[in-house]
Amino acid sequence: MSARAVVLLSGGLDSATALAIARAEGYACHALSFEYGQRHARELDSARRLAAALGAEEHLVLRLDLRAIGGSALTAEIDVPKGRSPATIAHGIPVTYVPARNTIFLSHALAWAEVLGARDLFIGVNVLDASGYPDCRPEFIRAFERLANLATRAGVEGDGHFRIHAPLIELSKAAIIRRGAELQVDHGLTWSCYAPERDGRACGLCDACLLRKKGFAEAGLRDPLPYAA
Amino acid sequence: MSARAVVLLSGGLDSATALAIARAEGYACHALSFEYGQRHARELDSARRLAAALGAEEHLVLRLDLRAIGGSALTAEIDVPKGRSPATIAHGIPVTYVPARNTIFLSHALAWAEVLGARDLFIGVNVLDASGYPDCRPEFIRAFERLANLATRAGVEGDGHFRIHAPLIELSKAAIIRRGAELQVDHGLTWSCYAPERDGRACGLCDACLLRKKGFAEAGLRDPLPYAA
Repeated sequence: MSARAVVLLSGGLDSATALAIARAEGYACHALSFEYGQRHARELDSARRLAAALGAEEHLVLRLDLRAIGGSALTAEIDVPKGRSPATIAHGIPVTYVPARNTIFLSHALAWAEVLGARDLFIGVNVLDASGYPDCRPEFIRAFERLANLATRAGVEGDGHFRIHAPLIELSKAAIIRRGAELQVDHGLTWSCYAPERDGRACGLCDACLLRKKGFAEAGLRDPLPYAA
Repeated sequence: MSARAVVLLSGGLDSATALAIARAEGYACHALSFEYGQRHARELDSARRLAAALGAEEHLVLRLDLRAIGGSALTAEIDVPKGRSPATIAHGIPVTYVPARNTIFLSHALAWAEVLGARDLFIGVNVLDASGYPDCRPEFIRAFERLANLATRAGVEGDGHFRIHAPLIELSKAAIIRRGAELQVDHGLTWSCYAPERDGRACGLCDACLLRKKGFAEAGLRDPLPYAA
């Protein structure tokens, strides 16, 4: 039987690629998504389709009440910035930062992993393009791995050691897109836009769209998604 | 203006005492509870009353979907053990362990603290009576504090340093009860039982009841709660 892994799956390019990598490494993948009051709930439909297309064993969507906590353009009534330059995007922590989001996501992934008997967690964070998110950095991932092995029965009783895999952490968006293409990820199933148009197209102007379009251009690949701009 | 603190408040003896300590230290307290599918949902009523009685600024109850994750007698259809000896209770991790629960709770507390501008988090864990829970140990608390300062905008931008306070961590249940009494905690508002009777009384036989009764006996104080056994 294959070893099990819990894979955080948002429905975006990065987590889809992380899932494809975990599958290629031979793990039986248990995909985990969150409905956390995000404005771009469409990404959950993408997550469902990606979990099926990439051969996950199962896909669990947990509800989280992050809107009650607030503090982010993704969960509150704060405007998502549009039309920023790549240099601006790469500096500072954006308003789309959701306080402690990856800590919250990984905590739930850890709980589920413990129940499943999985010791491997995959998360598709990367530091390069969106360096402003503190919880996408290697030192955060290492600190969480250390915590995981102190926080759980599995860590304490020594029947296994949790590993947090962040296989994209040092890759550019273009490299992630190329790696996904190699692993047969259908990029048309992924979703990145924070502020989709009413007609269903990606806005083309939010940070996520701009980074995605730049990535496809640099990778020399065609982005199958329709954009409004 | 007083510094703000986020205080995890379950409705039990320990978290009530932690809230009273935070108030005595002068913090403006923002109490945080979770509705996580626990069988003993009555503790949430206790948390509401305690937050008001102990002068919290506000009380937020977040819903968590821990039942979908499973793995614990507190959230799944596993029997809560009754009538165990104190020596047995003190050994091994019990079936009432909820995978990664304190990691999940502290992650949300951290998010809320960041939004509130609070840098102090209080949690009423203690290692002595219920030593089986891995996420009640000092090394867990220290690891989470380290993580908190890597995971957040507040930690990274250096405008403050998160501290996780666990003021009860080395205290016996009797000492916690005495400390609460000194700080005017109304113990009749607290709730501990995992498996209350239909008539509303505490069962008197689950681990939580046994530890509580032993604590009051050792403290030489009367427990105002009615017990079935």
